[in-house]
Amino acid sequence: MTTAKWIWRLALSILLVVGLVSAEVPKGYHREICQYRKGKHIQPMSDHHNRLMAMRKEMKIRATLQGPEIDGYILPSTDEHLNQEVAARDQRLRYLSGFTGVRAFAAVAEMGAAMWVENRYVQQADGELECDWEIYLTSGNVTVADWLGSKIGFDKRVGADPHLVPHSLWIEWERQLDNKLLKLVKVNTNLVDHIWGSERPETPNNQVINVHEKRFAGEKWQDKVKELRRQLSHLGCDAMVVTSLTEVAYLLNIRGTDIPFTPVVKSYAIVSQDEIFFYVAHTKISLGIDLHLHTDCFNAYCVKIKEYNQIWSDIRTYAQLWKRVLVSAPCVQDPGASEAIYSSMPGKIVEWHISPIIFMRAQKNFVEQEGMRRAHIRDGAAICEALSNLETRFHTEHWTEEKIKYEVELWRLSQKHAKGLSLRTVVAYGEHSALPYYISSNVTNIEVSDQSLLVIESGGQYLEGTTDVSRTFIFGEPTQEMKKAYTNVLAGILHMAHLTIPSDLKPSKVDAVVRTKLWSDMTDYPQATGHGIGSFSSVEEPPISVAYGMNSSFLFKQGYFFSSESGYYKRDDFGVRLKNVLEVVDTGHMHPTGTRFLAFQDVTMVPYEPKLIDHTLLSAAEKRLLNEYNAKIRINVGDELKRLGNMRAFYWMMNKTRHIREYLPEDEYRSATGGSSGGHTMNPLVVLGLLILLSAFLES
Amino acid sequence: MTTAKWIWRLALSILLVVGLVSAEVPKGYHREICQYRKGKHIQPMSDHHNRLMAMRKEMKIRATLQGPEIDGYILPSTDEHLNQEVAARDQRLRYLSGFTGVRAFAAVAEMGAAMWVENRYVQQADGELECDWEIYLTSGNVTVADWLGSKIGFDKRVGADPHLVPHSLWIEWERQLDNKLLKLVKVNTNLVDHIWGSERPETPNNQVINVHEKRFAGEKWQDKVKELRRQLSHLGCDAMVVTSLTEVAYLLNIRGTDIPFTPVVKSYAIVSQDEIFFYVAHTKISLGIDLHLHTDCFNAYCVKIKEYNQIWSDIRTYAQLWKRVLVSAPCVQDPGASEAIYSSMPGKIVEWHISPIIFMRAQKNFVEQEGMRRAHIRDGAAICEALSNLETRFHTEHWTEEKIKYEVELWRLSQKHAKGLSLRTVVAYGEHSALPYYISSNVTNIEVSDQSLLVIESGGQYLEGTTDVSRTFIFGEPTQEMKKAYTNVLAGILHMAHLTIPSDLKPSKVDAVVRTKLWSDMTDYPQATGHGIGSFSSVEEPPISVAYGMNSSFLFKQGYFFSSESGYYKRDDFGVRLKNVLEVVDTGHMHPTGTRFLAFQDVTMVPYEPKLIDHTLLSAAEKRLLNEYNAKIRINVGDELKRLGNMRAFYWMMNKTRHIREYLPEDEYRSATGGSSGGHTMNPLVVLGLLILLSAFLES
Repeated sequence: MTTAKWIWRLALSILLVVGLVSAEVPKGYHREICQYRKGKHIQPMSDHHNRLMAMRKEMKIRATLQGPEIDGYILPSTDEHLNQEVAARDQRLRYLSGFTGVRAFAAVAEMGAAMWVENRYVQQADGELECDWEIYLTSGNVTVADWLGSKIGFDKRVGADPHLVPHSLWIEWERQLDNKLLKLVKVNTNLVDHIWGSERPETPNNQVINVHEKRFAGEKWQDKVKELRRQLSHLGCDAMVVTSLTEVAYLLNIRGTDIPFTPVVKSYAIVSQDEIFFYVAHTKISLGIDLHLHTDCFNAYCVKIKEYNQIWSDIRTYAQLWKRVLVSAPCVQDPGASEAIYSSMPGKIVEWHISPIIFMRAQKNFVEQEGMRRAHIRDGAAICEALSNLETRFHTEHWTEEKIKYEVELWRLSQKHAKGLSLRTVVAYGEHSALPYYISSNVTNIEVSDQSLLVIESGGQYLEGTTDVSRTFIFGEPTQEMKKAYTNVLAGILHMAHLTIPSDLKPSKVDAVVRTKLWSDMTDYPQATGHGIGSFSSVEEPPISVAYGMNSSFLFKQGYFFSSESGYYKRDDFGVRLKNVLEVVDTGHMHPTGTRFLAFQDVTMVPYEPKLIDHTLLSAAEKRLLNEYNAKIRINVGDELKRLGNMRAFYWMMNKTRHIREYLPEDEYRSATGGSSGGHTMNPLVVLGLLILLSAFLES
Repeated sequence: MTTAKWIWRLALSILLVVGLVSAEVPKGYHREICQYRKGKHIQPMSDHHNRLMAMRKEMKIRATLQGPEIDGYILPSTDEHLNQEVAARDQRLRYLSGFTGVRAFAAVAEMGAAMWVENRYVQQADGELECDWEIYLTSGNVTVADWLGSKIGFDKRVGADPHLVPHSLWIEWERQLDNKLLKLVKVNTNLVDHIWGSERPETPNNQVINVHEKRFAGEKWQDKVKELRRQLSHLGCDAMVVTSLTEVAYLLNIRGTDIPFTPVVKSYAIVSQDEIFFYVAHTKISLGIDLHLHTDCFNAYCVKIKEYNQIWSDIRTYAQLWKRVLVSAPCVQDPGASEAIYSSMPGKIVEWHISPIIFMRAQKNFVEQEGMRRAHIRDGAAICEALSNLETRFHTEHWTEEKIKYEVELWRLSQKHAKGLSLRTVVAYGEHSALPYYISSNVTNIEVSDQSLLVIESGGQYLEGTTDVSRTFIFGEPTQEMKKAYTNVLAGILHMAHLTIPSDLKPSKVDAVVRTKLWSDMTDYPQATGHGIGSFSSVEEPPISVAYGMNSSFLFKQGYFFSSESGYYKRDDFGVRLKNVLEVVDTGHMHPTGTRFLAFQDVTMVPYEPKLIDHTLLSAAEKRLLNEYNAKIRINVGDELKRLGNMRAFYWMMNKTRHIREYLPEDEYRSATGGSSGGHTMNPLVVLGLLILLSAFLES
């Protein structure tokens, strides 16, 4: 560092010190319970408290092992592949703090500990975390750098495990910490693992790799590798390091059970123009996999299996051969490669580019398309079975959110080819349904009665495809306000599903179509309207994102599948949420500018709640769309339920999807619009008309 | 230039020569007539041909006057203030070539001449230009650099007048020409002016400056200057050079007649923190203006009037005092400052930034808002007068597009406070109406009968505001296809006018709402859906642009006015175009994220054509919107027409805006949707219902 830089740093330090003294200490979420305990000095000494103390000790020990000690440590909830839902063995944040949610990260300093969570997890975090922890919102304006700056002063070192942090986020943290005169350093062995020791769960023995057969995948893995190689050479790359588990699974037509909700195998792959390396625990390999991946030959389409951890030394070796290697940059929901992967190669050979696999995978082939449709029919049947069963038993049993969740999951898992859930099931009743991102848990579980709305958001993994659906029900009679809210949300979903668009229209630009009716009532929902969905893979798959606030430039293509979601939230009262999966189809028509017209098509086959639909608020055209949708459910899900022999579910479904009158009779129309000619009193002209009609009738 | 650079240049030259020999010569629009003449050697020797020859001579003479000769010259159609519609004195492109359109530019070389025009002007250019000229599309893939490269080889100099070219476009041309190894040089005296000589029209004597009174402007100019100074100091600027004529007119509350369609004065202004300079021809100044602008005092709110051309020497002088000066960058339709202005100051003091005046001006004050509404009512009355008159005389006279245009313009100009037209009136009949950007002219004029659709797009300048409206009419009976097209276009316009949006929604993201119905019929229109509009100023005003292909990030604000336009074009048959001006209003409601909900409101008051509306294609809600709009016209325009005493126009208007039945009777509904229960046959259930109703009636 030059002298000028030192002087500058000194000046800045002085400024910062002055700033620190005068600046307010960041304040997190107000923890009522801790306020109470603090006064009484009754902080309990729990496991989690001891682990936090052990962590602080570890931070000191670093001094003797890997250079100077660190004064702060950041721990994300992700694993090495940057998954949000992680295996028990990788739940480091949970082990340290007790927090069971996802999309969180913690910072630990000598003088405190803080957790950043999403809005929807705040209540849960408050219930689960010891009073050692402060809670902040990831969407709030206190960054981890602000907090660390206020706790450990300046010119100190903050550690983090580069395997668990995306490269893009690492750069961001580095910049933020640098502004506070703190240095972010790589601590390659995870500190939690040191504390965890022998208590840390082993990888379960039953985690094996399954071949994803061609009758479900629709394509041989060799063809996918061939296409990837073509694209890599087009980008001038010798090789690509595939770090995303869903990408490895897609590319090699394999599936597994290594992490919750997504059927993937913890592994890496390296694909070069003449070799394929697959890094995975050897215990997971069976003879079938060996045959599937051609591990016994030596041409460009034979996979060489190596031990999971060998990737780190291999990358360093191959980096000396490669001229240019593709490392994944972030793409919408996908965080890209970790800092550890990125920095394991010299910067000059790294091509930091969005993975080409994302676009290959998003465009489902005909087999996958057909599979997605079939999976959704079976999933629709599961919901009909669960809900019909629930409705029958509703008034004779005591129901809670968690019990309904259990029922829904049970019925879904009993379907043919069902291989698990695709997301944490949300069952939210009454005021919970008014929380846009509510996640039910033991901490927040409440009784479900027939007075308010019940939102169920859930999805399943089938060999044929992945499903994701939200529906809102009521077991009693809804108020007019509930009906209006539900009907407006439904109208948006119906419009979206029947949209035709030019193929160069950005997804963010269709969002207004879904929200128009809500906006005209001065309401809105905070979540994005849509995201891509995988085929027996992740429920949230790049590159599609339908959200008016985002400027993603990835376009819809024929064969893409994505979700279409809308909602209404009345704080402390009730909420409505509806979500369907749609398929993008080519209309075969050209747009005047030479692009094509694309259309959407409903794939989800779950009935809406007719009790919640106010027919006077829908136009005849909207009711026709609803009737067409219901007719499709009756045929497809009806066949499936008859095949299953569940006639209770069949009649429940038939009842929920009965044809509604598209045409609104004049008296209903007048009473709905408050027409001047009076709602129910008889208009003299109408009477005259009736008389004329009757005489004509009698004469004939 | 270093040796390495020379070698590189040499290598590139060789490559280019090889390329030139093998590459195809760019081909422009196929000119049938010229093909014929070429064979016969009957190229006529016209004035325009002689002028082109004189121009080539001028290009050589440059050698002796201002350095080496130039081998190519680029001439735009704009004036020094980069207006598209320019005064007779500034119609250099027209003088040189005979082309009367706008948004064009020419390139001249020893071996040829070429003109770049927009699609809509191609036919007209082909009719007007000598066969010396090739014609290219500005939207095509032959750039001016491609053409020059193919005509004059490489390592040559291309000249252009930097006063007539926006800085941003200059940079772009420089880059493109550099790729062809050509150098763009500034030729400060315009070559056309040399040839034009004494024939060049003088500035008309009657061009005086008018004060735009406070009862129309709503604000004193001093307050506007104060606000501008506040914003300049916020940007760290000492001064701003105001080059846009509409910005000068807005800022100083003055109007003029110096250019067609926009009521402005050819002038510059320089606003610094303590001085205001106004550069204008002294002949245009009257005593009233002296009083209005306080030219006789010496504080920061006294305007110093200087001769128009003195700006150039003044800028160079002041540039030595200023630390930072704002020069306008492009903003949507506004091209920003010219290359001459930009380069007249040292680069290091130039803050190239979007003019703050754009945003001050776009948000109309209460007086301007009320004025816009009143201007549109008067404009609506003018259209009613013109069209009712036309309809009466239609079958007794012979009508052409040009004659109808004359009638419409006449009625508009006869309104109170009318000060001219705001755009070239478009009257397009039959197949012409199917050309999205058709501009009627003597060359293309056709007879108008009652068989097809007539599109009229026009606008007026009133002291209170500027109007812009498109309507489509038919004098005979429309086909079902025409009705469907018109109704779908109308539905989009109705939806747009009744949209409620969060204030952080980008304008490009509402476009899908207008186009949805067209897209679902696999059609679209090529023009943008909307643009801002001025208050007694330019008809196309930044910063608003509603177009799904654009990514402009300037948001709607309360008090903005903009156009909402939709269309349908069936090639060689007919077209539909509708355009209204809308006002942005604050609903007073908050969006959940803390932004506000904004809504739109129709300002244009011109009836739609009821003959072209198919009621069965509109929902009851859409028909209610139409009825509400028609009721507003009946009240507002009705009052105005009664005041004018034109009862023919009044009854015409009342007839076109009559209330339509929102509720669709069952038989019409069934026949429109082809319902299975039969169109006109009586349903037994309906009969039963009638009987029951009758018996109830008889009993009571």
